[in-house]
Amino acid sequence: MPKTDPVDLTAALVRCASVTPEEGGALTLLHGVLEEAGFTCTRVDRGDVSNLFARWGAKGHDRTFGFNGHTDVVPLGNPDAWSMPPFGAEIKDGMLYGRGSTDMKSAVAAFVAAAVDFVQDTPPDGAVILTITGDEEGDAIDGTMALLDWMETHGEQMRVCLVGEPTCPNTMGEMIKIGRRGSMNAWFTVKGQQGHSAYPHRALNPMPAMARLMDRLASHELDQGTDHFDASTLAVVTIDTGNAATNVIPAETRACINIRFNDIHTGEGLSYWLREEAAKVDTEFGTRTDIKITISGESFLTPPGPLSDLVAKAVEAETGVVPELSTSGGTSDARFVKNHCPVVEFGLVGKTMHAVDERVEVDQIVQLKTIYTRILQEYFAQ
Amino acid sequence: MPKTDPVDLTAALVRCASVTPEEGGALTLLHGVLEEAGFTCTRVDRGDVSNLFARWGAKGHDRTFGFNGHTDVVPLGNPDAWSMPPFGAEIKDGMLYGRGSTDMKSAVAAFVAAAVDFVQDTPPDGAVILTITGDEEGDAIDGTMALLDWMETHGEQMRVCLVGEPTCPNTMGEMIKIGRRGSMNAWFTVKGQQGHSAYPHRALNPMPAMARLMDRLASHELDQGTDHFDASTLAVVTIDTGNAATNVIPAETRACINIRFNDIHTGEGLSYWLREEAAKVDTEFGTRTDIKITISGESFLTPPGPLSDLVAKAVEAETGVVPELSTSGGTSDARFVKNHCPVVEFGLVGKTMHAVDERVEVDQIVQLKTIYTRILQEYFAQ
Ligand SMILES: [Zn+2]
Ligand SMILES: [Zn+2]
Repeated sequence: MPKTDPVDLTAALVRCASVTPEEGGALTLLHGVLEEAGFTCTRVDRGDVSNLFARWGAKGHDRTFGFNGHTDVVPLGNPDAWSMPPFGAEIKDGMLYGRGSTDMKSAVAAFVAAAVDFVQDTPPDGAVILTITGDEEGDAIDGTMALLDWMETHGEQMRVCLVGEPTCPNTMGEMIKIGRRGSMNAWFTVKGQQGHSAYPHRALNPMPAMARLMDRLASHELDQGTDHFDASTLAVVTIDTGNAATNVIPAETRACINIRFNDIHTGEGLSYWLREEAAKVDTEFGTRTDIKITISGESFLTPPGPLSDLVAKAVEAETGVVPELSTSGGTSDARFVKNHCPVVEFGLVGKTMHAVDERVEVDQIVQLKTIYTRILQEYFAQ
Repeated sequence: MPKTDPVDLTAALVRCASVTPEEGGALTLLHGVLEEAGFTCTRVDRGDVSNLFARWGAKGHDRTFGFNGHTDVVPLGNPDAWSMPPFGAEIKDGMLYGRGSTDMKSAVAAFVAAAVDFVQDTPPDGAVILTITGDEEGDAIDGTMALLDWMETHGEQMRVCLVGEPTCPNTMGEMIKIGRRGSMNAWFTVKGQQGHSAYPHRALNPMPAMARLMDRLASHELDQGTDHFDASTLAVVTIDTGNAATNVIPAETRACINIRFNDIHTGEGLSYWLREEAAKVDTEFGTRTDIKITISGESFLTPPGPLSDLVAKAVEAETGVVPELSTSGGTSDARFVKNHCPVVEFGLVGKTMHAVDERVEVDQIVQLKTIYTRILQEYFAQ
């Protein structure tokens, strides 16, 4: 039986201009490949986002391995800065160039190729589910969340899931992600009373209250880290007032902070703390502070165990590298999948993701397919 | 001998559209009036600013009374918001309307009318000098400063000077200004190192340093006031960063403060303090802070004495009100005159200055001329 070439499939996907939320033909292409290999496919589109669900094997089987990935890509940045066509998938010196080549069309191609060949070569007693979204890089509201909602409604269940995001900082195989810190943003508006700089007692300047609040938040130690997580961090990312008149005390000022938090915290707990701190400052200064909070994702951890062991062993067998189990980095769709089943993340080296001249080592794509294949073999051999 | 009508003269001046630095015909008009009354007049223009120097009596006389004022006016704001033509000088219900009617064409008209009539009716043994500028509302670099430079070069000397700025908050006669607080602005740029919000240890966020610095400056008590001055004040007027990306730690952030300071301080001393505080924060956070400082004017005081007594007695005699000797409010050209001779400020009620529908009570213009006349009489009677 002919092997599915993950490099050809990566190239075909890169040629689909699928900047979020454009589907760009990428999911349609995969739909065709998977259906031909005997997968039952359903397009689960929601809003302006396209998503693809595919299952091989019996629905509801208690050995069902899942993969999750995305075909959407971030914008090109400055198109003139690219040295190769950003949707060209051209190969030069062993590197395949193009937006999404690293993040993460190569991994989608690798797990699709692995799954297709595996179920045809050695049909397992179980099922393989692929959940592929067209919106991970955007709002991610109608992407993997829509797929999981649809699966719940339709009685579809992955028992474990591997997300194919690029997880290795420098060397193939060096890192598996077993959790992620949570992320939240809070926007503060501190309101006072406008007035003339020469008569500050007739005004209520919101600036000192804002400075005090941001100083307190930024200098507070949230924690010192946990067994599997780095310390939580809080970054004040902007303070803006827009008052060009030096003789005017402004009526209000705005700020935004970003918190990356580990499993000691929840978005709700941190929101409560932020509101308390703002209230204290308001009491001290007589100001009124409005807060708008967006929780991008709660922190989560799949504690080291059968799934991470399985993936780590396959990685070591194929690369010779013992992968670190890490919770570093930003958010990914694993934050949604973790509510559905145990989830870990493993993919290739992410160095050029989101950058101009994004590119991937052709050999790494081939190696990634081999690793994913070994994971499937080991999972169903148990 | 016919009396000079200060209301007619105010109206004629208001009809000159003299928004800084436009002369608008105002100084040319006064030049004619004063020359006809026997004053020696010199246009002391510098840069794009027009100024008028006028002296009656002997140069260098040790009894020389000076007046200072400006004919330039601030812009109209929204011209459609005016209920009367802003350069029309129309009178309605006893009020004369127009830009500059309060600040301070009426006072210039009053002291010109007072001086012209006084020297003709009762020629004194001494001299009267009028210094009238076309740039008090703007940069004020080539206005009264240019007049004083020219006077020094030409051996012209006022022994005392009365600035005709509107000094009364609500009631005619209630306030004489014997000094002003100084004013300075400082612009801070705190520089760090840009980075990703998820990895704050790889960046150097300038925001916490800025918050700490602004909190410290704003909460520092500069002083508790002096015999003649209110406490000095420091207002943080803006902090701006312009970072819209919540996942990015910005490279730098900017802020501006305004300080109004009394005679305990100097601009230089405060600048030193600001630089010291910024250096402390830079040491704590590892940031680099640039500071740009502009000293708009040093504080000054003409201690209560012969000049303020003279003006206060004349005000009380004409209005029945005992004026307060104050140092409140913003800056005026008195900050330049104080280096030349003792200076106080007295004018009418300033309520509508710089506002739409600026207007002045016609009776107050007449009363102001009477007060200025009495001041001249008393000064030369001594
Ligand atoms: Zn990705
Ligand atoms: Zn003025």
